[in-house]
Amino acid sequence: MSDQIGQWETRGKTQTLFRRFNFERYAQTRDFMDALSELAQADGVHPQNINFSSTYVNVTLDPTDSGQANHLLAQRIDALYKPTGH
Amino acid sequence: MSDQIGQWETRGKTQTLFRRFNFERYAQTRDFMDALSELAQADGVHPQNINFSSTYVNVTLDPTDSGQANHLLAQRIDALYKPTGH
Repeated sequence: MSDQIGQWETRGKTQTLFRRFNFERYAQTRDFMDALSELAQADGVHPQNINFSSTYVNVTLDPTDSGQANHLLAQRIDALYKPTGH
Repeated sequence: MSDQIGQWETRGKTQTLFRRFNFERYAQTRDFMDALSELAQADGVHPQNINFSSTYVNVTLDPTDSGQANHLLAQRIDALYKPTGH
């Protein structure tokens, strides 16, 4: 069973969030990965899992400590996504 | 069917190489990811797929243009791996 929350999908019994980000070129993918890394470093939190190749990044987010889907982190990651610019 | 080549495993009919790198802390994982990114940027090549979390990085390498397992890239990635240092 899966639900949509914005562009993110909840997966599994726990409130894991999943979203796929697509890019036209590796340079854009790399910029997004760099931004994700900076966010993780600044916050001391990082996604449960990141799976990426040259033109996509799949991100999975753990629930918050209270067991809710981590919408706040999802929105902050959405804000990093610039699929066509460079 | 899978074979071992050093610490890497060939997977599938094509000569894809796969290796899991384990780390004690996220800071080490991040350093390894940064080094991988620099290697990709310098060479203009990047792994087919990278899947990582706080304490591991799974790397899959495409075969070379001639269809052979990419041992050279595997060895260069091995050289970046510092599981305990920082």
